Amino acid sequence: MVYAQIPDIIVGRLPRYLQVLTWMLSDGIQTTSSQDLGERIGISAAQIRKDLSQFGEFGKQGTGYSIPFLVNQIQAILNVKQVWNIALIGAGDLGHAIARYQGFANRGFRIAMVFDIDQNKIGREIGEFIIQDIAAMVETIRSADIKIAMITVTAQSAQGVAEKLVEAGIKSILTYAPVPLKLPPGIFIQYIDPIIQLQHMTYYLGN
Amino acid sequence: MVYAQIPDIIVGRLPRYLQVLTWMLSDGIQTTSSQDLGERIGISAAQIRKDLSQFGEFGKQGTGYSIPFLVNQIQAILNVKQVWNIALIGAGDLGHAIARYQGFANRGFRIAMVFDIDQNKIGREIGEFIIQDIAAMVETIRSADIKIAMITVTAQSAQGVAEKLVEAGIKSILTYAPVPLKLPPGIFIQYIDPIIQLQHMTYYLGN
Repeated sequence: MVYAQIPDIIVGRLPRYLQVLTWMLSDGIQTTSSQDLGERIGISAAQIRKDLSQFGEFGKQGTGYSIPFLVNQIQAILNVKQVWNIALIGAGDLGHAIARYQGFANRGFRIAMVFDIDQNKIGREIGEFIIQDIAAMVETIRSADIKIAMITVTAQSAQGVAEKLVEAGIKSILTYAPVPLKLPPGIFIQYIDPIIQLQHMTYYLGN
Repeated sequence: MVYAQIPDIIVGRLPRYLQVLTWMLSDGIQTTSSQDLGERIGISAAQIRKDLSQFGEFGKQGTGYSIPFLVNQIQAILNVKQVWNIALIGAGDLGHAIARYQGFANRGFRIAMVFDIDQNKIGREIGEFIIQDIAAMVETIRSADIKIAMITVTAQSAQGVAEKLVEAGIKSILTYAPVPLKLPPGIFIQYIDPIIQLQHMTYYLGN
């Protein structure tokens, strides 16, 4: 299916829609309204309608949205009806937590390989993986044609690792290190940083 | 300072503005434009201007925005000129990673206490903290008047822990467990889920 180009700000909200819709499905809920969905997500009903209208007519006046249909459409738009392999760089506490994360199943991703620089970790198991030597990372990722990496190394190491990932053919990087990555155009970087969500919450806590 | 009520969707973008502006400051950059800031964040210049105009006139036509001034204003709006204490529940791999996270400094937060249910962990050190028994959590959090908690327990335990946190007077919960929390109105919940960012990126990777 071909969609017109969608503003990135809307694309960024679709995974959250998908998450909440999937939770509703697992609660046995089959239909929703823009009002209901908006309340669950914390977005106005008008914004929900506007966002979803980008992809054609999902809802019918009066009957609301079919959740299975909406889930299917959003999965197709986000290209997550397939399973993407991910290279995980950094086998510290956070790397271990991600390797064992219960949230990957049926959502379009699986960790495929794990690398670290620490000779004491290389060769050890992490979840179902053997930690591989970061020295072999570029060639291994390139051979496996992996396009997505997650970085859980220290702030000091993140830029160097990211540059090697670009060399390996990685196109999308999700980093947990609290530093900006400076990479060539065409590489899509996302940051996971709990402070972002904490600061959102303190707006409502007042002083 | 008193601001008019700001739509939540804009509030949610302000921490990302603050993060990028702080990075610019640490690179020695003192002024920016909506165009420049938009490119760094991945949002249109028009959206940046619209968002910032919610809080009054920050920028001057032709001279751009003063970054120190903008940082100061956004910190005030988000109530992060003070330091908020956080209770961390769950001393597993992820809890350890958070307790040692390098990204908290000077951003308005500090981990103040850590709890776990595992008798093998209670009493041990995690970073600079002693892991406390979750059985004492409600009273300890209430006595310390802590309003923010981070949950890194398993998916199965998250709802039960969250209910106890509400009992303890917690108003804002940031959870890493990939399950929806069902809590009374007035409790602000945020989810950290790497799949959300990964699915955003696969939109651009195509099939």
